[in-house]
Amino acid sequence: MATIPAAKPGELIQDIAHLGGVELLTPKPDRSLLYFKDVLGMEVVHTEGTSVYMRGYGDYATSTLKLTGAKTSGVGCISWRAVGPEALARRVAAIEATGLGIGWIDGDFGRGPSYRFRDPDGHLMEVYYAETRYRAPDHLRSTLKNLPQKYTARGVNVRRIDHLALLCKDVAANRMFAERALGFRLHEQVRFENGAKEIGSWMSPSQMHHQMAYVVDIKGARGRLHHLSLWVDNREDVLRAADIFAENGVFIEAGPSRHNNSQGFYLYSYEPGGNRVEVYSGSYLVFAPDWEPVIWNEEERGTGVYWGTPLPESFISYGTPDVDAAVPAELEKIPVFDPS
Amino acid sequence: MATIPAAKPGELIQDIAHLGGVELLTPKPDRSLLYFKDVLGMEVVHTEGTSVYMRGYGDYATSTLKLTGAKTSGVGCISWRAVGPEALARRVAAIEATGLGIGWIDGDFGRGPSYRFRDPDGHLMEVYYAETRYRAPDHLRSTLKNLPQKYTARGVNVRRIDHLALLCKDVAANRMFAERALGFRLHEQVRFENGAKEIGSWMSPSQMHHQMAYVVDIKGARGRLHHLSLWVDNREDVLRAADIFAENGVFIEAGPSRHNNSQGFYLYSYEPGGNRVEVYSGSYLVFAPDWEPVIWNEEERGTGVYWGTPLPESFISYGTPDVDAAVPAELEKIPVFDPS
Amino acid sequence: MATIPAAKPGELIQDIAHLGGVELLTPKPDRSLLYFKDVLGMEVVHTEGTSVYMRGYGDYATSTLKLTGAKTSGVGCISWRAVGPEALARRVAAIEATGLGIGWIDGDFGRGPSYRFRDPDGHLMEVYYAETRYRAPDHLRSTLKNLPQKYTARGVNVRRIDHLALLCKDVAANRMFAERALGFRLHEQVRFENGAKEIGSWMSPSQMHHQMAYVVDIKGARGRLHHLSLWVDNREDVLRAADIFAENGVFIEAGPSRHNNSQGFYLYSYEPGGNRVEVYSGSYLVFAPDWEPVIWNEEERGTGVYWGTPLPESFISYGTPDVDAAVPAELEKIPVFDPS
Amino acid sequence: MATIPAAKPGELIQDIAHLGGVELLTPKPDRSLLYFKDVLGMEVVHTEGTSVYMRGYGDYATSTLKLTGAKTSGVGCISWRAVGPEALARRVAAIEATGLGIGWIDGDFGRGPSYRFRDPDGHLMEVYYAETRYRAPDHLRSTLKNLPQKYTARGVNVRRIDHLALLCKDVAANRMFAERALGFRLHEQVRFENGAKEIGSWMSPSQMHHQMAYVVDIKGARGRLHHLSLWVDNREDVLRAADIFAENGVFIEAGPSRHNNSQGFYLYSYEPGGNRVEVYSGSYLVFAPDWEPVIWNEEERGTGVYWGTPLPESFISYGTPDVDAAVPAELEKIPVFDPS
Repeated sequence: MATIPAAKPGELIQDIAHLGGVELLTPKPDRSLLYFKDVLGMEVVHTEGTSVYMRGYGDYATSTLKLTGAKTSGVGCISWRAVGPEALARRVAAIEATGLGIGWIDGDFGRGPSYRFRDPDGHLMEVYYAETRYRAPDHLRSTLKNLPQKYTARGVNVRRIDHLALLCKDVAANRMFAERALGFRLHEQVRFENGAKEIGSWMSPSQMHHQMAYVVDIKGARGRLHHLSLWVDNREDVLRAADIFAENGVFIEAGPSRHNNSQGFYLYSYEPGGNRVEVYSGSYLVFAPDWEPVIWNEEERGTGVYWGTPLPESFISYGTPDVDAAVPAELEKIPVFDPS
Repeated sequence: MATIPAAKPGELIQDIAHLGGVELLTPKPDRSLLYFKDVLGMEVVHTEGTSVYMRGYGDYATSTLKLTGAKTSGVGCISWRAVGPEALARRVAAIEATGLGIGWIDGDFGRGPSYRFRDPDGHLMEVYYAETRYRAPDHLRSTLKNLPQKYTARGVNVRRIDHLALLCKDVAANRMFAERALGFRLHEQVRFENGAKEIGSWMSPSQMHHQMAYVVDIKGARGRLHHLSLWVDNREDVLRAADIFAENGVFIEAGPSRHNNSQGFYLYSYEPGGNRVEVYSGSYLVFAPDWEPVIWNEEERGTGVYWGTPLPESFISYGTPDVDAAVPAELEKIPVFDPS
Repeated sequence: MATIPAAKPGELIQDIAHLGGVELLTPKPDRSLLYFKDVLGMEVVHTEGTSVYMRGYGDYATSTLKLTGAKTSGVGCISWRAVGPEALARRVAAIEATGLGIGWIDGDFGRGPSYRFRDPDGHLMEVYYAETRYRAPDHLRSTLKNLPQKYTARGVNVRRIDHLALLCKDVAANRMFAERALGFRLHEQVRFENGAKEIGSWMSPSQMHHQMAYVVDIKGARGRLHHLSLWVDNREDVLRAADIFAENGVFIEAGPSRHNNSQGFYLYSYEPGGNRVEVYSGSYLVFAPDWEPVIWNEEERGTGVYWGTPLPESFISYGTPDVDAAVPAELEKIPVFDPS
Repeated sequence: MATIPAAKPGELIQDIAHLGGVELLTPKPDRSLLYFKDVLGMEVVHTEGTSVYMRGYGDYATSTLKLTGAKTSGVGCISWRAVGPEALARRVAAIEATGLGIGWIDGDFGRGPSYRFRDPDGHLMEVYYAETRYRAPDHLRSTLKNLPQKYTARGVNVRRIDHLALLCKDVAANRMFAERALGFRLHEQVRFENGAKEIGSWMSPSQMHHQMAYVVDIKGARGRLHHLSLWVDNREDVLRAADIFAENGVFIEAGPSRHNNSQGFYLYSYEPGGNRVEVYSGSYLVFAPDWEPVIWNEEERGTGVYWGTPLPESFISYGTPDVDAAVPAELEKIPVFDPS
């Protein structure tokens, strides 16, 4: 196991700039596409094979969501953009040191060379730096010079990708991997049994509250997705999203309401392919360089809501793919990550 | 002149964590206090001499606003928190190399050793790392474990300090100083005369759009404040702030409306001491590590609004202190900063 | 039984102008007062015996909420303002014809002669016309000439009383009483068992969606309150109310969320005395003079929410006073109302 | 002149239910159509000649906006729905008594027999009762049983028609006509010169603050439109409308901001044909049956804004059609209305 330490105060080196994109797998690609395009208001920028590449109007990158037709739902590859070539090299070295590296690919649509790896739970990820800058076609050019694309006012019109939450068997191991291999910092955590059991960890490469969360998979499965989250600017936009979901027969699992941890204002839906998609606003920026992670125990965490009706049981139990078989054979082969 | 370069892609070293606090000078301290406490809903945490130390409910620091009775309005000391001791040392070295360093002080209320300096225009600043963590007294304890203080729902109830805008004689010189001495990155800029004249620059140590802006002082004065900005979470909160200002006889100079540059949703008031204070929401995070600053020319910038009624002339001409005499004698003595 | 018919198209005589006020009974008057004054932001205008008279900043009447210390929770007298002396006389005649009239009193604080009666379920009500116009004291004078009182920005700061919902044994009988005795129109209705069983009826004297609802008391009790509702102007104000409730330990039963019937955006809390109080916005005005009441069956009604998490079971079962004994002896003596 | 008096307390007979629809004239019908359909999100329900009939998703009537290709901009026929056949007869009698009646027509699309007349300034109006109820086609059916049409989430997606403001030579005469012929009540008024000069009057047939305003035409013209107003439910929706207008090159004359009189939250645009169209929310309901009209003098009225930047000069001077010639010959022939 590598000895590359996590970042510490005094050396706030941020090697990962942000979540660059997420690939979602869907067994109902046509209906999923309608959900993201017409209901959420995202734009299609490219099509290749069974994959459609999409973007939010505020994403500076060309594409932040890759929708891929597949046998099951779930998450495909999760892409992280490094801040530069040296940072990328540093992260690749750190990843390789964990034994979980896979290798370089030429890069998916719009991106340069990307190094692929799996996290200890088996989620496929990649880091990259080079990327083609998005230039909006005429009909999608904004009147705001600092906005990469027109606000089209179609459906929810999500602004950009925000974060994702992954289910995993061993939260601690995956959290430590993200700290060491990616340089993420831990901002909040749920720990049960007097702190002995790590239930969930919310992490970020920057002052954003979280760009990735690891949450325990109570089915003991591996490599599953809890949710992908897309940003809107105000809480009223989230309420409006609920209205739009209700008018269009989109299943709303929970919200609009407010989490206690993260303070995020959430609305959880299932896109037609079965993946949980959140429309999200609020939360807070973590400014303190010596931030002490906020740790919630059983009682403090409650059901995870700050107000009102508790989250339904499915919020804990459901993930994609919606498996009974705990661990796909393919993921059983992943090398063991020993964070000690 | 120092040779410490600005941060570049591949080496995203963030030495300054965030704006730690701003001291405002007021000739009407009692009325200014009522404005910040009862109208904006901030809390008083400490009093010393003619100074009152205040905070927003979401500020993790003990105090982010120091209100000091003085003969004139204007800005006192502007404090920047470093990410750690090494970062602090690095920044002090960089500042000293510019010839604009002043020296160490023990630290203002709640802070450890702080290194003071002036920017080329003469604004007094300091960098520090050590700081006492805020612990809310019982009556101000929030039911949210991740919120440093209770949301009291008094008046506007601003969440936290956001940024400040400083007037200066030479925007380019001050902007370059901030890049080199503080490690800030330039996110947006207004340049007139085919790019030859730098009118304003919006800068940040992090993914926040800006924590400091330099804007040209059309009176040719030095060391003046354009505005201090306080954050609320939603645009509706800004509208509500306008209602509250109108009910309480607070002068509203402009807004609520939306800027084109920064996309910020603004409401500008003058606090009773004369300083321009903004209630602010919106804007956007700058994720791209290779962000190309957005540059606005005369035509594109217009009056700086994205919609509706132009900003009034005072928005360009008024700053604090509200001087006729261009440059205070004390500021004339500041060493010349030569960014070349 | 009287033969005064309900209003019909072509003769839209509106005799009741609006809900004038509601008296709430509370076994914890001090804590209830803090809830309405400091958390909801209402103003105290008068105190008499164990009663405190309060108002919202937008209420034109002097007082719209009377909080009375009592052994149990529940609703005291419900007051309806007539549009004028002749309308008042007409309504008194109609009420007397039902056999449910009680008689004239001098009038509660701020009101002239009032005629008291009970609805068939036993809720105490009164109609009146004369009323002292509210004149705000200096410190509560608004800068808006058309606003009766300053928007104080304390707590939730509800604007005005909106409506109330009453539990009753026989919804149809009470609904018909309101139509005939008060001239209310039915706007929406829940009917189960192929329309045979009237579960709830939402009624109004005007274009407001409802100022009174009758809902079946599943405990078979009489004279109970389901909720009192207070208005805020925007959905974001309701979200903010939830934040304020959560910070102040106020029990939130449900919401913020959106009903399907009425389309109202709701937040239900229990005030310290136990009464359910709603912070409310949205819904819609009923413009059509020939409006056909919207009738919801079991399936359409569902749990009464348009989105997200269902209302809790308590929303159906809980009312005030929170009785086991079905019907207070005093209410058993009310004459039977036969709407046939 | 007729002797039919305005409604008085005690006899609140409401004969006009609401504003049924407005015909707008446009010299650029194609572009105007795109504005109302794609930018404002209204639906086309019918086309006839150069006219397109449209509706908001919350309008219960089939069509509330008739867009008619014409040589100039301006308002065509303004339609008021009576509460029933008897009310209609009563209003026709009252109108005929003023000498301004024109006569019966069969009724425009979706309406039964309508009686046409002109107000003293020459604006063409009609009253009617019979109307075809709107039934949404399948693709526009809402999941809300009490919503006449699906919320399509296209563009601004205005909910319904709200009110209109008419310019006129003699505000008092037109206001008195509306009181007597239509039974409207006066809710607010601007009077200059110690009350001698009536500048504007805001009137309503119901508890809505205003469904029609008469404002003095400073060009001394006749029959012109100041603006047509369309409703959205929350202030945030108005802000979002401004974003959408700005992205689509729609001219924004003023707002989003808040009026002092009416308290309305406004956004004024010019549709491509030149007519001023308002996206509107807020204001307040007038509950008091003995409401004393709020009267604003020069100083109190100011520029008509509650906060921030004053309304531009065009708000006073511009109306449609945008005439220099004061009075069209056709309108000079209208009989004189003598309200004395």
